[in-house]
Amino acid sequence: MASERGKISRELTDLLARGRDRQLRLAVTGLSRAGKTAFLTSLVNQLRHAGLEARLDMLPAAREGRLLGAQRLNQQDLGVPRFPYDQAMAALNDSPPRWPEPTRGISELRLQLRYRPARSGWLTPQTTSLTLDLFDYPGEWLLDLPLLQHDFFSWSQAQTRAHGPQRRALFTDWQEGVAALDPAAEADEAQLAELAERYAQGLRRAKKAGFSDLQPGRFLLPGELEGAPALQFFPLPGLFDTQRAELDALPADSLYATLAQRFRYYQQHVVRPFYRDHFRRFDRQIVLVDVLGALNAGPERFDDLSRALNHLMQSFDYGKRSLLTRLFAPKIDRLAIAATKADHVTPDQHPNLIHLLEALLAEPLQDLRFADVPVKAFSLAAIRATQAREITQQGQQSAALRGTTLEGEEVLVYPGDVPATLPEATFWDQQGFNFPAFRPMPRTTDVLAHIRMDSAIDWLIGDKLT
Amino acid sequence: MASERGKISRELTDLLARGRDRQLRLAVTGLSRAGKTAFLTSLVNQLRHAGLEARLDMLPAAREGRLLGAQRLNQQDLGVPRFPYDQAMAALNDSPPRWPEPTRGISELRLQLRYRPARSGWLTPQTTSLTLDLFDYPGEWLLDLPLLQHDFFSWSQAQTRAHGPQRRALFTDWQEGVAALDPAAEADEAQLAELAERYAQGLRRAKKAGFSDLQPGRFLLPGELEGAPALQFFPLPGLFDTQRAELDALPADSLYATLAQRFRYYQQHVVRPFYRDHFRRFDRQIVLVDVLGALNAGPERFDDLSRALNHLMQSFDYGKRSLLTRLFAPKIDRLAIAATKADHVTPDQHPNLIHLLEALLAEPLQDLRFADVPVKAFSLAAIRATQAREITQQGQQSAALRGTTLEGEEVLVYPGDVPATLPEATFWDQQGFNFPAFRPMPRTTDVLAHIRMDSAIDWLIGDKLT
Repeated sequence: MASERGKISRELTDLLARGRDRQLRLAVTGLSRAGKTAFLTSLVNQLRHAGLEARLDMLPAAREGRLLGAQRLNQQDLGVPRFPYDQAMAALNDSPPRWPEPTRGISELRLQLRYRPARSGWLTPQTTSLTLDLFDYPGEWLLDLPLLQHDFFSWSQAQTRAHGPQRRALFTDWQEGVAALDPAAEADEAQLAELAERYAQGLRRAKKAGFSDLQPGRFLLPGELEGAPALQFFPLPGLFDTQRAELDALPADSLYATLAQRFRYYQQHVVRPFYRDHFRRFDRQIVLVDVLGALNAGPERFDDLSRALNHLMQSFDYGKRSLLTRLFAPKIDRLAIAATKADHVTPDQHPNLIHLLEALLAEPLQDLRFADVPVKAFSLAAIRATQAREITQQGQQSAALRGTTLEGEEVLVYPGDVPATLPEATFWDQQGFNFPAFRPMPRTTDVLAHIRMDSAIDWLIGDKLT
Repeated sequence: MASERGKISRELTDLLARGRDRQLRLAVTGLSRAGKTAFLTSLVNQLRHAGLEARLDMLPAAREGRLLGAQRLNQQDLGVPRFPYDQAMAALNDSPPRWPEPTRGISELRLQLRYRPARSGWLTPQTTSLTLDLFDYPGEWLLDLPLLQHDFFSWSQAQTRAHGPQRRALFTDWQEGVAALDPAAEADEAQLAELAERYAQGLRRAKKAGFSDLQPGRFLLPGELEGAPALQFFPLPGLFDTQRAELDALPADSLYATLAQRFRYYQQHVVRPFYRDHFRRFDRQIVLVDVLGALNAGPERFDDLSRALNHLMQSFDYGKRSLLTRLFAPKIDRLAIAATKADHVTPDQHPNLIHLLEALLAEPLQDLRFADVPVKAFSLAAIRATQAREITQQGQQSAALRGTTLEGEEVLVYPGDVPATLPEATFWDQQGFNFPAFRPMPRTTDVLAHIRMDSAIDWLIGDKLT
């Protein structure tokens, strides 16, 4: 009788917990070309086919046949673009298959997952459901968070300290123009607009050249602020700490005060609203990282990616004294980081890929664990574009990949070894790394082939499906 | 002594009045291709050169040498794009000269005009200044005002009542898809997105084909709402008054209720903010109309322009019971309407151009005069692109225009007679109207040649320069 009562009480607790947990807001981010669109497309695809053909062995609810599938529901916020799942699938179903168009800005999709609870009993319903709100937003927006910690003076110092020579070379136009400026002179709107445009051009060139650590992020995607003074500022180089008081005392129409005012406007009207209106409400987050792309691009861009990721991860550091915690009380309770495009290296390299990702994020991961945010690292391919093969060369067996390049050429390649730690100078000198970009594979079923999407899904939502 | 006291008292009053009036917010609007960018560029150009080469004989302050010029100041709202005056002048100074790029959305520019008061006296300063905030916004936004008067049911009826056959033909894709819809069926997000895209395509086609009366206006310039459910609705055709109660009772997830919810979101989050944040603050307004373009395009588009202008002008009808007055308490105290591109017809046709403009706007003009809003009609060319000539043909003298077409051909033409009243069927059958598009003229000075810009400027700001 006592154990019977205990069982009922446990069932009641389960029921209440499920009541509370009926909704989960999961956000996907990453710097551009990290694979956000492919990940979200695959995530929706796998969940929709969970009861049927999808291969999700690492997700218990699916393995046990309890996950019955997913249906799309109307989203709640009518002002946020809907994630274009159908368009993405149409691209992947094209012949030849194409990668989906990347999304710009934030987008959203709401799913209802139906599943059978793992434990059954008197009070447990036969089936129950979880509402899953999926969000996708540019990781570049998170790069602007550190901007909130600064005033214009310290931001100028932070932004103009030593970057590498390749990156500096992309900003010479701006550098030439800004060198002659007198902070105390009266601001000239047209001149500021012209120099801000040169700075934005530098950022665009740097992005195109594979750099990631680019602030202010909205300069790259101005939207309706195109041409507004809110986006017409830039850091002032060569400021020394001893000048601060003098500069702060300059009149409101001075060049320095004008730039500082626009910087504050950008903080208040561009950076803050994203954290306040969206970020604060996410329950869980996955951050996608194109580690292999950075390996491909050489040492300076690899270092730049590392710096960008360290900035980006500050948004998840909920240490008691963190800026974010003080400002927005975010509630993300579980975090995944994933090295994407794992299908671009042979399977034997996947463990190294995770090690390298963890090495890249060593410092923020320490902070996160200290702040007690559960975080897990993955290597995955959201939409597998290659097949692993063994080849025999001069009597020796070795791993290789078969795939079709974007140009349509079928190739069998060995892209290279992934270092397990941050690569040193010798890696770049001696070994290097080179993989081709593959197009998606043609399919005969509706389900997308993947690598370890099921593990990632289990970490992100599996505990809600018990 | 008494008269001396009277003089001082009058001077004090003047001084106070000028104190109060030191700022004026002047808005320029018009449907796309009406000539907003050219007008604003010329306005700034004339005011900047007012003390020097600008020909502004109809503006007393300029004629009397009291207007000393204009300087650009920093605008106040950092989130509004700055009107790109320099880029516009650069295009006009190119060789061959080009028309400036049209603006999208709202833009702003602040000028400080310096002038000597007309009356001098003990207390009158030698020179004084007027801060002039110039705004430029798409007339299409005003076409959305009538939307606020409707609910989804009445809007659907208003939008699907008889348009002409040419316009209907541009919406056949949408018409086919929407015909089969059941308002009571459960809403299918993907289907709504697809049909809304077809509706938006119809609007884009209609705009390209020269139609103007297009709602919802933001479907044509979605900006950051691209792909959001807020822009995924459309009118439902074939609704009868007797159905209203039945439709209003449908559940929230029905097709009808979903469309109605998005319509309300669009009203609240797209239409209202423009009136609340911008329109309400304008002091004066000029509405530009490309009457000649519509004459060129034939009877159906001319009727459509007439309907669009009647919708647009509702935004200036401050009758006590008007929707706008109840919602936003706007304060525009003086209005100009102008037929632009007057340089595209011979000078003898200019009076008819004004008459035709007044005929086009007869109904709203009556309402405005009844509501006591001072309004005046002009014909003008903000940037003159032709020169008037007399030609002698078979012994007869007649008027003609010399200009250079966009293709670079120098021509001498007589574009046609402008009817003084709304053209009847016989006009379209027998006479027609045809003018070429001219490129801007090369110049030797910094000042832009114009037709009657000075009269328009006098009406819009002249009383503030006394």
